[in-house]
Amino acid sequence: MPDAQAQQAAKLAAAKAALRFIEPGMVVGLGSGSTATLFIQLLGEKVQQGLDIKGIASSEDSEVLGRKLGIPITDFDHHSTIDVAVDGADEVAPGLALIKGGGGKLLREKIVASACKRFIIVADDSKLVKQLGAFPLPVEVIPMAVPLVTEKLSDLGFTPKIRQDKSGNGPYITDEGNILLDCSSSGIADPEVTAAEIRSIIGVVEHGLFLNMAERVLLAGADGSVRELTVEDYPAA
Amino acid sequence: MPDAQAQQAAKLAAAKAALRFIEPGMVVGLGSGSTATLFIQLLGEKVQQGLDIKGIASSEDSEVLGRKLGIPITDFDHHSTIDVAVDGADEVAPGLALIKGGGGKLLREKIVASACKRFIIVADDSKLVKQLGAFPLPVEVIPMAVPLVTEKLSDLGFTPKIRQDKSGNGPYITDEGNILLDCSSSGIADPEVTAAEIRSIIGVVEHGLFLNMAERVLLAGADGSVRELTVEDYPAA
Repeated sequence: MPDAQAQQAAKLAAAKAALRFIEPGMVVGLGSGSTATLFIQLLGEKVQQGLDIKGIASSEDSEVLGRKLGIPITDFDHHSTIDVAVDGADEVAPGLALIKGGGGKLLREKIVASACKRFIIVADDSKLVKQLGAFPLPVEVIPMAVPLVTEKLSDLGFTPKIRQDKSGNGPYITDEGNILLDCSSSGIADPEVTAAEIRSIIGVVEHGLFLNMAERVLLAGADGSVRELTVEDYPAA
Repeated sequence: MPDAQAQQAAKLAAAKAALRFIEPGMVVGLGSGSTATLFIQLLGEKVQQGLDIKGIASSEDSEVLGRKLGIPITDFDHHSTIDVAVDGADEVAPGLALIKGGGGKLLREKIVASACKRFIIVADDSKLVKQLGAFPLPVEVIPMAVPLVTEKLSDLGFTPKIRQDKSGNGPYITDEGNILLDCSSSGIADPEVTAAEIRSIIGVVEHGLFLNMAERVLLAGADGSVRELTVEDYPAA
Protein backbone atom coordinates (compact mmCIF):
# COMPACT_ATOMS: atom_id res chain seq x y z
CA MET A 1 0.00 0.00 0.00
CA PRO A 2 1.53 3.33 -0.98
CA ASP A 3 2.39 5.73 1.87
CA ALA A 4 -0.25 8.34 1.01
CA GLN A 5 -2.95 5.66 0.93
CA ALA A 6 -1.80 4.20 4.26
CA GLN A 7 -1.81 7.66 5.82
CA GLN A 8 -5.33 8.25 4.51
CA ALA A 9 -6.46 4.94 6.03
CA ALA A 10 -4.89 5.92 9.33
CA LYS A 11 -6.63 9.29 9.32
CA LEU A 12 -9.96 7.59 8.67
CA ALA A 13 -9.35 5.12 11.50
CA ALA A 14 -8.60 7.98 13.93
CA ALA A 15 -11.68 9.89 12.80
CA LYS A 16 -13.87 6.80 13.30
CA ALA A 17 -12.45 6.25 16.78
CA ALA A 18 -13.51 9.77 17.79
CA LEU A 19 -17.20 9.01 17.15
CA ARG A 20 -17.53 7.10 20.41
CA PHE A 21 -17.09 10.36 22.38
CA ILE A 22 -20.21 11.84 20.81
CA GLU A 23 -23.56 11.44 22.57
CA PRO A 24 -27.07 12.64 21.71
CA GLY A 25 -27.77 16.22 22.77
CA MET A 26 -24.15 17.32 22.68
CA VAL A 27 -22.67 20.50 21.25
CA VAL A 28 -19.71 19.30 19.17
CA GLY A 29 -16.74 21.38 18.05
CA LEU A 30 -16.00 20.74 14.38
CA GLY A 31 -12.31 21.02 13.66
CA SER A 32 -10.44 21.76 10.45
CA GLY A 33 -7.85 20.00 8.36
CA SER A 34 -7.81 16.61 6.65
CA THR A 35 -8.45 14.28 9.61
CA ALA A 36 -11.02 16.53 11.27
CA THR A 37 -12.81 16.78 7.92
CA LEU A 38 -13.10 12.98 7.80
CA PHE A 39 -14.61 13.14 11.29
CA ILE A 40 -17.18 15.74 10.17
CA GLN A 41 -18.16 13.50 7.28
CA LEU A 42 -18.65 10.51 9.59
CA LEU A 43 -20.57 12.68 12.04
CA GLY A 44 -22.77 13.92 9.21
CA GLU A 45 -23.69 10.31 8.38
CA LYS A 46 -24.71 9.76 12.01
CA VAL A 47 -26.83 12.92 11.96
CA GLN A 48 -28.53 11.72 8.78
CA GLN A 49 -29.26 8.48 10.65
CA GLY A 50 -30.95 10.47 13.41
CA LEU A 51 -28.21 11.52 15.87
CA ASP A 52 -29.31 14.75 17.56
CA ILE A 53 -26.28 17.03 18.05
CA LYS A 54 -25.32 20.60 17.20
CA GLY A 55 -21.99 21.75 15.80
CA ILE A 56 -19.80 24.81 16.33
CA ALA A 57 -17.30 25.15 13.49
CA SER A 58 -13.70 26.27 13.75
CA SER A 59 -13.47 27.49 10.16
CA GLU A 60 -15.66 28.69 7.34
CA ASP A 61 -14.83 25.49 5.44
CA SER A 62 -15.98 23.28 8.33
CA GLU A 63 -19.16 25.30 8.73
CA VAL A 64 -19.99 24.95 5.03
CA LEU A 65 -19.26 21.20 5.13
CA GLY A 66 -21.27 20.71 8.32
CA ARG A 67 -24.31 22.48 6.91
CA LYS A 68 -24.06 20.53 3.67
CA LEU A 69 -24.15 17.29 5.66
CA GLY A 70 -27.17 18.43 7.65
CA ILE A 71 -25.39 19.10 10.95
CA PRO A 72 -27.25 21.94 12.73
CA ILE A 73 -24.68 24.72 13.22
CA THR A 74 -24.83 26.91 16.33
CA ASP A 75 -22.51 29.49 17.92
CA PHE A 76 -21.28 30.84 21.25
CA ASP A 77 -24.20 33.25 21.49
CA HIS A 78 -26.42 30.20 21.95
CA HIS A 79 -24.04 27.78 23.70
CA SER A 80 -21.15 29.03 25.80
CA THR A 81 -19.71 25.53 26.27
CA ILE A 82 -18.81 22.81 23.80
CA ASP A 83 -19.13 19.27 25.13
CA VAL A 84 -16.53 17.67 22.86
CA ALA A 85 -14.40 19.14 20.10
CA VAL A 86 -12.56 16.90 17.66
CA ASP A 87 -9.67 18.37 15.74
CA GLY A 88 -6.40 17.46 14.10
CA ALA A 89 -2.82 18.45 14.94
CA ASP A 90 0.45 18.89 13.08
CA GLU A 91 2.61 17.70 15.99
CA VAL A 92 1.87 15.98 19.29
CA ALA A 93 4.63 16.22 21.91
CA PRO A 94 5.01 15.08 25.53
CA GLY A 95 2.30 16.49 27.79
CA LEU A 96 0.05 16.48 24.71
CA ALA A 97 1.54 19.83 23.73
CA LEU A 98 0.46 20.49 20.16
CA ILE A 99 1.39 22.48 17.13
CA LYS A 100 -1.66 23.30 15.04
CA GLY A 101 -2.34 25.69 12.21
CA GLY A 102 -0.89 23.88 9.22
CA GLY A 103 -4.34 24.22 7.65
CA GLY A 104 -4.44 27.93 8.45
CA LYS A 105 -7.37 27.86 10.91
CA LEU A 106 -5.55 28.03 14.24
CA LEU A 107 -7.34 31.10 15.61
CA ARG A 108 -10.89 29.76 15.57
CA GLU A 109 -9.58 26.28 16.41
CA LYS A 110 -8.03 27.70 19.57
CA ILE A 111 -11.19 29.64 20.46
CA VAL A 112 -13.16 26.38 20.12
CA ALA A 113 -10.56 24.48 22.15
CA SER A 114 -10.72 27.11 24.91
CA ALA A 115 -14.48 26.62 25.24
CA CYS A 116 -14.74 22.84 25.31
CA LYS A 117 -14.96 20.34 28.13
CA ARG A 118 -13.16 17.62 26.17
CA PHE A 119 -10.70 18.40 23.38
CA ILE A 120 -9.97 15.24 21.39
CA ILE A 121 -7.19 15.16 18.81
CA VAL A 122 -7.31 12.82 15.83
CA ALA A 123 -4.10 12.18 13.92
CA ASP A 124 -2.03 9.60 12.17
CA ASP A 125 0.99 8.43 14.13
CA SER A 126 3.47 10.35 12.00
CA LYS A 127 2.44 13.40 14.07
CA LEU A 128 3.89 12.06 17.32
CA VAL A 129 7.18 13.80 18.22
CA LYS A 130 9.57 13.99 21.17
CA GLN A 131 9.93 17.76 20.85
CA LEU A 132 7.82 20.36 19.02
CA GLY A 133 9.28 22.45 16.25
CA ALA A 134 10.25 20.28 13.29
CA PHE A 135 6.91 21.46 11.91
CA PRO A 136 7.16 25.26 11.48
CA LEU A 137 5.04 27.02 14.11
CA PRO A 138 2.28 29.14 12.51
CA VAL A 139 1.79 32.59 14.02
CA GLU A 140 -1.21 34.72 12.99
CA VAL A 141 -0.32 38.39 12.63
CA ILE A 142 -2.10 41.70 11.87
CA PRO A 143 -1.00 42.55 8.29
CA MET A 144 0.37 46.00 9.18
CA ALA A 145 2.66 44.52 11.85
CA VAL A 146 4.21 41.68 9.81
CA PRO A 147 7.66 43.32 9.44
CA LEU A 148 7.78 44.21 13.16
CA VAL A 149 6.63 40.78 14.33
CA THR A 150 9.02 39.05 11.91
CA GLU A 151 11.91 40.90 13.55
CA LYS A 152 10.79 39.99 17.07
CA LEU A 153 10.25 36.32 16.18
CA SER A 154 13.72 36.27 14.66
CA ASP A 155 15.07 37.62 17.95
CA LEU A 156 13.45 34.57 19.62
CA GLY A 157 15.41 32.26 17.30
CA PHE A 158 12.73 31.58 14.69
CA THR A 159 13.00 31.93 10.93
CA PRO A 160 9.56 33.30 9.98
CA LYS A 161 8.25 32.98 6.46
CA ILE A 162 5.01 34.48 5.16
CA ARG A 163 2.65 31.67 4.11
CA GLN A 164 1.67 31.94 0.47
CA ASP A 165 -1.73 31.26 -0.98
CA LYS A 166 -1.99 28.00 -2.92
CA SER A 167 -3.19 29.96 -5.95
CA GLY A 168 0.20 31.68 -6.04
CA ASN A 169 -1.42 35.10 -5.93
CA GLY A 170 0.36 36.33 -2.83
CA PRO A 171 0.08 35.76 0.91
CA TYR A 172 -2.46 33.36 2.39
CA ILE A 173 -5.17 35.36 4.17
CA THR A 174 -6.83 33.81 7.22
CA ASP A 175 -10.59 33.75 7.88
CA GLU A 176 -10.04 36.85 10.05
CA GLY A 177 -8.06 38.71 7.39
CA ASN A 178 -4.63 38.18 8.90
CA ILE A 179 -1.25 36.87 7.70
CA LEU A 180 0.41 33.62 8.83
CA LEU A 181 4.12 33.48 9.57
CA ASP A 182 5.41 29.89 9.46
CA CYS A 183 8.26 29.91 11.95
CA SER A 184 11.03 27.36 11.53
CA SER A 185 13.35 26.66 14.44
CA SER A 186 15.83 24.14 15.71
CA GLY A 187 13.15 22.91 18.13
CA ILE A 188 10.94 24.37 20.87
CA ALA A 189 12.55 23.26 24.12
CA ASP A 190 10.09 24.96 26.47
CA PRO A 191 6.68 25.46 24.82
CA GLU A 192 5.21 27.35 27.82
CA VAL A 193 7.95 29.96 27.74
CA THR A 194 7.81 30.26 23.96
CA ALA A 195 4.02 30.61 24.01
CA ALA A 196 4.19 33.46 26.52
CA GLU A 197 6.97 35.21 24.61
CA ILE A 198 5.09 35.05 21.31
CA ARG A 199 1.77 36.05 22.85
CA SER A 200 3.38 39.19 24.29
CA ILE A 201 4.49 40.49 20.88
CA ILE A 202 2.21 43.34 19.81
CA GLY A 203 0.64 42.55 16.44
CA VAL A 204 0.39 38.80 17.13
CA VAL A 205 -3.23 37.67 17.15
CA GLU A 206 -2.62 34.03 18.07
CA HIS A 207 -0.10 31.22 17.59
CA GLY A 208 -0.21 27.50 16.92
CA LEU A 209 1.01 26.23 20.30
CA PHE A 210 -1.94 24.47 21.98
CA LEU A 211 -0.81 23.69 25.53
CA ASN A 212 -2.79 22.04 28.32
CA MET A 213 -5.78 21.79 26.04
CA ALA A 214 -5.92 18.27 24.61
CA GLU A 215 -7.58 15.67 26.84
CA ARG A 216 -6.49 12.80 24.62
CA VAL A 217 -5.02 12.00 21.24
CA LEU A 218 -6.36 9.22 19.01
CA LEU A 219 -3.33 8.14 17.05
CA ALA A 220 -3.82 5.81 14.15
CA GLY A 221 -1.19 3.61 12.54
CA ALA A 222 -0.93 2.63 8.89
CA ASP A 223 -2.43 -0.77 9.84
CA GLY A 224 -5.66 0.92 10.98
CA SER A 225 -5.02 0.37 14.70
CA VAL A 226 -5.74 3.32 16.99
CA ARG A 227 -3.84 4.14 20.16
CA GLU A 228 -5.28 6.52 22.74
CA LEU A 229 -2.84 8.80 24.51
CA THR A 230 -3.62 10.91 27.58
CA VAL A 231 -1.21 13.18 29.42
CA GLU A 232 -0.54 10.27 31.78
CA ASP A 233 0.47 8.07 28.84
CA TYR A 234 2.75 10.70 27.37
CA PRO A 235 3.75 13.05 30.20
CA ALA A 236 5.86 16.20 29.83
CA ALA A 237 9.48 15.68 30.85
CA MET B 1 -15.78 80.39 27.51
CA PRO B 2 -17.99 77.29 27.38
CA ASP B 3 -16.41 74.04 28.52
CA ALA B 4 -16.39 72.38 25.10
CA GLN B 5 -14.65 75.40 23.59
CA ALA B 6 -12.07 75.50 26.39
CA GLN B 7 -11.40 71.79 25.93
CA GLN B 8 -10.96 72.29 22.19
CA ALA B 9 -8.48 75.14 22.87
CA ALA B 10 -6.57 72.88 25.27
CA LYS B 11 -6.41 70.07 22.70
CA LEU B 12 -5.06 72.49 20.12
CA ALA B 13 -2.45 73.79 22.56
CA ALA B 14 -1.27 70.23 23.29
CA ALA B 15 -1.14 69.38 19.59
CA LYS B 16 0.92 72.51 18.88
CA ALA B 17 3.34 71.67 21.69
CA ALA B 18 4.04 68.29 20.08
CA LEU B 19 5.37 69.88 16.90
CA ARG B 20 8.70 70.69 18.53
CA PHE B 21 9.55 66.97 18.70
CA ILE B 22 9.40 66.67 14.91
CA GLU B 23 12.57 67.13 12.88
CA PRO B 24 13.27 66.95 9.15
CA GLY B 25 13.84 63.43 7.84
CA MET B 26 11.84 61.74 10.58
CA VAL B 27 9.29 58.95 10.28
CA VAL B 28 6.32 60.16 12.34
CA GLY B 29 3.55 58.02 13.81
CA LEU B 30 0.17 59.61 13.14
CA GLY B 31 -2.27 58.89 15.94
CA SER B 32 -6.04 58.83 15.99
CA GLY B 33 -8.73 60.64 17.92
CA SER B 34 -9.57 64.33 18.32
CA THR B 35 -6.27 65.69 19.70
CA ALA B 36 -4.05 63.56 17.47
CA THR B 37 -6.14 64.71 14.50
CA LEU B 38 -5.37 68.33 15.38
CA PHE B 39 -1.68 67.37 15.46
CA ILE B 40 -1.93 65.78 11.99
CA GLN B 41 -3.52 68.96 10.67
CA LEU B 42 -0.72 71.12 12.12
CA LEU B 43 1.89 68.69 10.79
CA GLY B 44 0.24 68.85 7.36
CA GLU B 45 0.67 72.64 7.36
CA LYS B 46 4.38 72.22 8.12
CA VAL B 47 4.73 69.69 5.30
CA GLN B 48 3.03 72.10 2.94
CA GLN B 49 5.61 74.69 4.07
CA GLY B 50 8.41 72.30 3.11
CA LEU B 51 9.01 70.03 6.13
CA ASP B 52 10.37 66.71 4.87
CA ILE B 53 8.91 63.86 6.94
CA LYS B 54 7.05 60.63 6.33
CA GLY B 55 4.03 59.36 8.25
CA ILE B 56 2.87 55.92 9.40
CA ALA B 57 -0.82 56.04 10.28
CA SER B 58 -2.53 54.23 13.15
CA SER B 59 -5.96 54.16 11.50
CA GLU B 60 -7.58 54.35 8.12
CA ASP B 61 -8.98 57.78 9.05
CA SER B 62 -5.53 59.12 9.92
CA GLU B 63 -4.06 57.74 6.73
CA VAL B 64 -6.77 59.38 4.61
CA LEU B 65 -6.33 62.69 6.45
CA GLY B 66 -2.53 62.53 6.17
CA ARG B 67 -2.64 61.90 2.44
CA LYS B 68 -5.18 64.68 1.94
CA LEU B 69 -2.80 67.08 3.69
CA GLY B 70 0.14 65.99 1.53
CA ILE B 71 1.99 63.98 4.20
CA PRO B 72 3.86 61.14 2.44
CA ILE B 73 2.54 57.91 3.97
CA THR B 74 4.85 54.94 4.44
CA ASP B 75 4.64 51.60 6.27
CA PHE B 76 6.66 49.08 8.25
CA ASP B 77 7.80 47.32 5.08
CA HIS B 78 9.82 50.44 4.32
CA HIS B 79 10.65 51.68 7.83
CA SER B 80 10.85 49.32 10.76
CA THR B 81 11.24 52.14 13.28
CA ILE B 82 9.20 55.27 13.90
CA ASP B 83 11.17 58.21 15.27
CA VAL B 84 8.30 59.92 17.07
CA ALA B 85 4.64 59.00 17.33
CA VAL B 86 2.09 61.51 18.62
CA ASP B 87 -1.21 60.19 19.87
CA GLY B 88 -4.00 60.93 22.30
CA ALA B 89 -5.16 59.07 25.41
CA ASP B 90 -8.39 58.61 27.32
CA GLU B 91 -6.71 58.40 30.73
CA VAL B 92 -3.19 59.11 31.96
CA ALA B 93 -2.29 57.55 35.32
CA PRO B 94 0.87 57.41 37.47
CA GLY B 95 3.82 55.90 35.62
CA LEU B 96 2.23 57.28 32.43
CA ALA B 97 0.06 54.20 32.28
CA LEU B 98 -2.63 54.90 29.71
CA ILE B 99 -6.06 53.82 28.66
CA LYS B 100 -6.56 54.28 24.93
CA GLY B 101 -9.14 53.10 22.44
CA GLY B 102 -12.04 55.44 23.03
CA GLY B 103 -11.82 56.26 19.35
CA GLY B 104 -11.79 52.58 18.42
CA LYS B 105 -8.28 52.43 16.94
CA LEU B 106 -6.30 50.87 19.79
CA LEU B 107 -4.86 47.94 17.85
CA ARG B 108 -2.96 49.87 15.20
CA GLU B 109 -2.18 52.59 17.75
CA LYS B 110 -0.48 49.99 19.92
CA ILE B 111 1.41 48.52 16.96
CA VAL B 112 2.68 52.02 16.14
CA ALA B 113 3.55 52.66 19.80
CA SER B 114 5.49 49.39 19.95
CA ALA B 115 7.66 50.46 17.02
CA CYS B 116 8.57 54.01 17.99
CA LYS B 117 11.57 55.51 19.73
CA ARG B 118 9.55 58.29 21.32
CA PHE B 119 5.84 57.97 22.07
CA ILE B 120 4.38 61.40 22.87
CA ILE B 121 0.87 61.76 24.24
CA VAL B 122 -1.18 64.89 23.67
CA ALA B 123 -4.23 65.46 25.85
CA ASP B 124 -6.21 68.03 27.73
CA ASP B 125 -5.73 67.93 31.49
CA SER B 126 -9.12 66.32 32.14
CA LYS B 127 -7.43 63.04 31.14
CA LEU B 128 -5.07 62.99 34.12
CA VAL B 129 -6.20 60.48 36.76
CA LYS B 130 -4.83 58.92 39.95
CA GLN B 131 -6.01 55.44 38.96
CA LEU B 132 -7.08 53.98 35.60
CA GLY B 133 -10.56 52.62 35.08
CA ALA B 134 -13.15 55.40 35.39
CA PHE B 135 -12.97 55.35 31.58
CA PRO B 136 -14.19 51.90 30.45
CA LEU B 137 -11.26 49.84 29.15
CA PRO B 138 -11.72 48.90 25.47
CA VAL B 139 -10.84 45.29 24.59
CA GLU B 140 -10.71 44.22 20.92
CA VAL B 141 -12.14 40.74 20.39
CA ILE B 142 -12.59 38.24 17.51
CA PRO B 143 -16.36 38.35 16.76
CA MET B 144 -16.90 34.61 17.20
CA ALA B 145 -15.40 34.72 20.71
CA VAL B 146 -17.36 37.69 22.10
CA PRO B 147 -19.64 35.63 24.41
CA LEU B 148 -16.65 33.62 25.74
CA VAL B 149 -14.45 36.67 26.31
CA THR B 150 -17.34 38.57 27.93
CA GLU B 151 -17.66 35.80 30.49
CA LYS B 152 -13.92 35.76 31.25
CA LEU B 153 -13.72 39.56 31.56
CA SER B 154 -16.68 39.41 33.95
CA ASP B 155 -14.75 36.88 36.03
CA LEU B 156 -11.96 39.49 36.26
CA GLY B 157 -14.43 42.01 37.72
CA PHE B 158 -15.28 43.95 34.58
CA THR B 159 -18.70 44.75 33.16
CA PRO B 160 -18.16 44.43 29.40
CA LYS B 161 -20.50 46.08 26.94
CA ILE B 162 -20.36 45.70 23.16
CA ARG B 163 -19.60 49.09 21.59
CA GLN B 164 -22.33 50.17 19.20
CA ASP B 165 -21.82 51.91 15.90
CA LYS B 166 -22.75 55.59 15.92
CA SER B 167 -25.14 54.92 13.05
CA GLY B 168 -27.18 52.74 15.37
CA ASN B 169 -26.97 49.81 12.97
CA GLY B 170 -25.38 47.36 15.38
CA PRO B 171 -21.91 46.77 16.82
CA TYR B 172 -18.99 49.03 15.99
CA ILE B 173 -16.54 47.13 13.75
CA THR B 174 -12.84 47.94 14.04
CA ASP B 175 -10.49 48.52 11.09
CA GLU B 176 -9.46 44.84 11.49
CA GLY B 177 -13.05 43.57 11.52
CA ASN B 178 -13.29 42.92 15.24
CA ILE B 179 -15.66 43.88 18.08
CA LEU B 180 -14.86 46.22 20.96
CA LEU B 181 -15.94 45.43 24.50
CA ASP B 182 -15.97 48.55 26.68
CA CYS B 183 -15.18 47.22 30.13
CA SER B 184 -16.38 49.20 33.13
CA SER B 185 -14.84 48.49 36.52
CA SER B 186 -14.46 49.98 39.96
CA GLY B 187 -10.87 50.89 39.03
CA ILE B 188 -7.75 49.09 37.79
CA ALA B 189 -5.51 48.79 40.83
CA ASP B 190 -2.63 46.95 39.14
CA PRO B 191 -2.53 47.64 35.39
CA GLU B 192 0.39 45.22 34.75
CA VAL B 193 -1.48 42.30 36.26
CA THR B 194 -4.73 43.22 34.52
CA ALA B 195 -2.95 43.60 31.17
CA ALA B 196 -1.41 40.14 31.44
CA GLU B 197 -4.72 38.58 32.51
CA ILE B 198 -6.63 40.10 29.61
CA ARG B 199 -3.91 39.32 27.07
CA SER B 200 -4.05 35.65 28.05
CA ILE B 201 -7.76 35.29 27.20
CA ILE B 202 -8.13 33.41 23.93
CA GLY B 203 -10.12 35.50 21.46
CA VAL B 204 -8.70 38.82 22.71
CA VAL B 205 -6.75 40.57 19.96
CA GLU B 206 -5.55 43.55 21.98
CA HIS B 207 -6.62 45.84 24.83
CA GLY B 208 -6.43 49.52 25.62
CA LEU B 209 -3.87 49.42 28.44
CA PHE B 210 -0.68 51.08 27.13
CA LEU B 211 1.97 50.49 29.79
CA ASN B 212 5.63 51.53 29.75
CA MET B 213 5.13 53.05 26.31
CA ALA B 214 4.66 56.81 26.71
CA GLU B 215 7.85 58.84 27.01
CA ARG B 216 5.98 62.00 27.92
CA VAL B 217 2.53 63.51 28.07
CA LEU B 218 1.79 67.04 26.88
CA LEU B 219 -1.11 68.09 29.05
CA ALA B 220 -2.93 71.29 28.18
CA GLY B 221 -5.13 73.32 30.49
CA ALA B 222 -8.19 75.31 29.54
CA ASP B 223 -6.03 78.48 29.69
CA GLY B 224 -3.84 77.16 26.85
CA SER B 225 -0.83 76.39 29.07
CA VAL B 226 0.91 73.05 28.44
CA ARG B 227 2.57 70.94 31.10
CA GLU B 228 5.02 68.18 30.17
CA LEU B 229 4.93 65.05 32.27
CA THR B 230 7.53 62.28 32.18
CA VAL B 231 7.53 59.14 34.30
CA GLU B 232 9.80 60.96 36.74
CA ASP B 233 7.22 63.75 37.09
CA TYR B 234 4.35 61.32 37.64
CA PRO B 235 5.86 58.07 38.92
CA ALA B 236 3.97 54.87 39.60
CA ALA B 237 3.20 54.38 43.28
